[in-house]
Amino acid sequence: VSNRVITFTTDFGSADAYLAAMKGVALGIVPDLTLVDITHEVPPQDIAHGAFVLGSAYQYFPVDTVHVAVVDPGVGTRRKAVLVVSPTGSFVGPDNGVLSYVLKDYMTFDQVQFKSTEFARPVVITVPSDCQVYELTNPEYWHHPVSSTFHGRDIFAPVAAHLASGVQQENVGESIQELVFLNLFTLRRSDDRVEGEVIYIDRFGNLVSNIQKDSLPDREIVIELAGVTISGLSRTFSDADSLLALIGSHGYLEVAGNRGSAARRLGVEVGATLTVRRR
Amino acid sequence: VSNRVITFTTDFGSADAYLAAMKGVALGIVPDLTLVDITHEVPPQDIAHGAFVLGSAYQYFPVDTVHVAVVDPGVGTRRKAVLVVSPTGSFVGPDNGVLSYVLKDYMTFDQVQFKSTEFARPVVITVPSDCQVYELTNPEYWHHPVSSTFHGRDIFAPVAAHLASGVQQENVGESIQELVFLNLFTLRRSDDRVEGEVIYIDRFGNLVSNIQKDSLPDREIVIELAGVTISGLSRTFSDADSLLALIGSHGYLEVAGNRGSAARRLGVEVGATLTVRRR
Amino acid sequence: VSNRVITFTTDFGSADAYLAAMKGVALGIVPDLTLVDITHEVPPQDIAHGAFVLGSAYQYFPVDTVHVAVVDPGVGTRRKAVLVVSPTGSFVGPDNGVLSYVLKDYMTFDQVQFKSTEFARPVVITVPSDCQVYELTNPEYWHHPVSSTFHGRDIFAPVAAHLASGVQQENVGESIQELVFLNLFTLRRSDDRVEGEVIYIDRFGNLVSNIQKDSLPDREIVIELAGVTISGLSRTFSDADSLLALIGSHGYLEVAGNRGSAARRLGVEVGATLTVRRR
Repeated sequence: VSNRVITFTTDFGSADAYLAAMKGVALGIVPDLTLVDITHEVPPQDIAHGAFVLGSAYQYFPVDTVHVAVVDPGVGTRRKAVLVVSPTGSFVGPDNGVLSYVLKDYMTFDQVQFKSTEFARPVVITVPSDCQVYELTNPEYWHHPVSSTFHGRDIFAPVAAHLASGVQQENVGESIQELVFLNLFTLRRSDDRVEGEVIYIDRFGNLVSNIQKDSLPDREIVIELAGVTISGLSRTFSDADSLLALIGSHGYLEVAGNRGSAARRLGVEVGATLTVRRR
Repeated sequence: VSNRVITFTTDFGSADAYLAAMKGVALGIVPDLTLVDITHEVPPQDIAHGAFVLGSAYQYFPVDTVHVAVVDPGVGTRRKAVLVVSPTGSFVGPDNGVLSYVLKDYMTFDQVQFKSTEFARPVVITVPSDCQVYELTNPEYWHHPVSSTFHGRDIFAPVAAHLASGVQQENVGESIQELVFLNLFTLRRSDDRVEGEVIYIDRFGNLVSNIQKDSLPDREIVIELAGVTISGLSRTFSDADSLLALIGSHGYLEVAGNRGSAARRLGVEVGATLTVRRR
Repeated sequence: VSNRVITFTTDFGSADAYLAAMKGVALGIVPDLTLVDITHEVPPQDIAHGAFVLGSAYQYFPVDTVHVAVVDPGVGTRRKAVLVVSPTGSFVGPDNGVLSYVLKDYMTFDQVQFKSTEFARPVVITVPSDCQVYELTNPEYWHHPVSSTFHGRDIFAPVAAHLASGVQQENVGESIQELVFLNLFTLRRSDDRVEGEVIYIDRFGNLVSNIQKDSLPDREIVIELAGVTISGLSRTFSDADSLLALIGSHGYLEVAGNRGSAARRLGVEVGATLTVRRR
């Protein structure tokens, strides 16, 4: 029997004891786990940021992996704690949109278009048909006493460890049909142009947009961002002298600097508008 | 047989090779270890900081875990290298106070009151009766040649791995009866007030004090810190508009900002005085 | 059977999903790997820096460890992807010098002296006789589709996992006889003096030079750096009041501040000249 894998995506940083406490609790339940950090450098309480990082990593893990996502500004309030079981992994975390990229992968293009709400606003969706969702209501699988400020340690990590040890998904709580989802993927499209937003900026200053390859007009394109125009798609980061656009390893259209930060050069932040049109 | 767990708490950061060298040495002795980072972001040579983080995490790990603590400004000098075996875990590290929070958990309230010495000063204590302590004097379990600057790699990690592989605690060195302890927990108390210090500031800017729940006058309290007064205890970080006080997930009285850093707002550092009194 | 160990040395940082994607791919191939981070804090695209950290850590790991090194500014261009098998470990990464410290350990002192080229310049060398090198040309062991921007995830991590699972080294690609090597180790020597460079600055501000113990005139030495003169070698960081020199735990001559950053005090960067002469 192989070790089961649990991953962690949090805004805890790596300086405090929070993360280790979660891992200790999990190892106390199942000693032979393989624990993998996705990231702990999510900016404090930035749910959309954490959602992106988890959404860019989970699909590379074995399908029996349990992913723990804790970016949880509403801890101790009425926000639900949930388990989402998808065909490509199981996920535990707060019901606040941190699983949006996972859910999106099981929604149609039309389902993720919320034209009347602004970028990054939470909306309530029906659970995609390929997924099952449970509210974590069964305290049998929690670490007691349960604090009101640290459900990562007291609810999410122990539930994940119990799931990894073979506890059935139905046992962790009540099946539910609705979830919070962040409106990060709405595009404005016409015949010859598509408009989206910068959804993520990585360590290298690359600007990742919410425009996926399938939504591009064709390969003869021009990208506009922050008053700058980029012609065509590059294949590698070495292809252009300064700014370039390419389909990044996440599968999204990305604006990058060749050996320098595009974010710094353009002064662009998450939420900035990006337009792609036919040349 | 399950993998044995070794944890690491250091001030090495994550940029250099020091940590990996320790892990490599440990895996060379026992290939099937589960290695967990508690933190490596202890500010360089800040023993009290490292002691707090380890002290907030160790109790969540299986009791047969071996914890390695290396915040070691005196490496290569006469300071002892020690193994502390407690009912809730084994610990290897320098005898400089980095295990103070672990030891405190086995001392009475009166034993941790050192009224005549200043905050954070090292004192010498007798080993608590539930613990056994050994000076690491047996070179059989070290990595050779032993450097004079990196005992983490050459003494602490290999001893931890040998302990995890089943070496008996008595074999690593001589039993000793005294240890260095940091005076972090002394409170000034009267009938209706208790005065302590800020002992830790976390990533979110939360100010953790050395006042535990048991030492509070009662629930109708007022907290004073840096000229600010906070009334009563909150249950979650969302309960108040700006500054709030609560019993944090570490079990200590903590002053936090709701969605903002209390440390930055108050300009407070470790060592600042905090007073709790009856309303 | 023990878990096989794979290590990672990258410039990916710990904030983005890149590292987790690599680990997920590896665990998808071999679920029972032990994954160890050497560092991900290599400054972006700083090949020499990454080479130093890997070169300071690999020798402490079991010899059947597979080390993955991804500091890869040329990803997607013609630079080769390689496997280096040495007597003390296997290494996969781009052929851009990131394995220079590993190769150096199998070269003679004369072989690493490239007097006509400047510090840190890439040169082409013949593979050392104790090593075998393969260009990664067999797509059977890659993760598909292969992107042009992220060979860490698509080539290096899956090849490492397949090697860890027992795939023979000959199967990953064609044997090659030449490699890129960074000229980091050239010293200027005369009878009573040796001149080298600062090759690395660690978290503590210690200045590591490329002068190894064997190259020192004798123990009665004077070290000159940035207009400052240090007499003799110390044994520990506590031995001197301010600046001191010692043979660091990496085996190189190092200039350190006692409880303070020597780099900051001297205003020195990588590449600075350091002279050792007889007193």
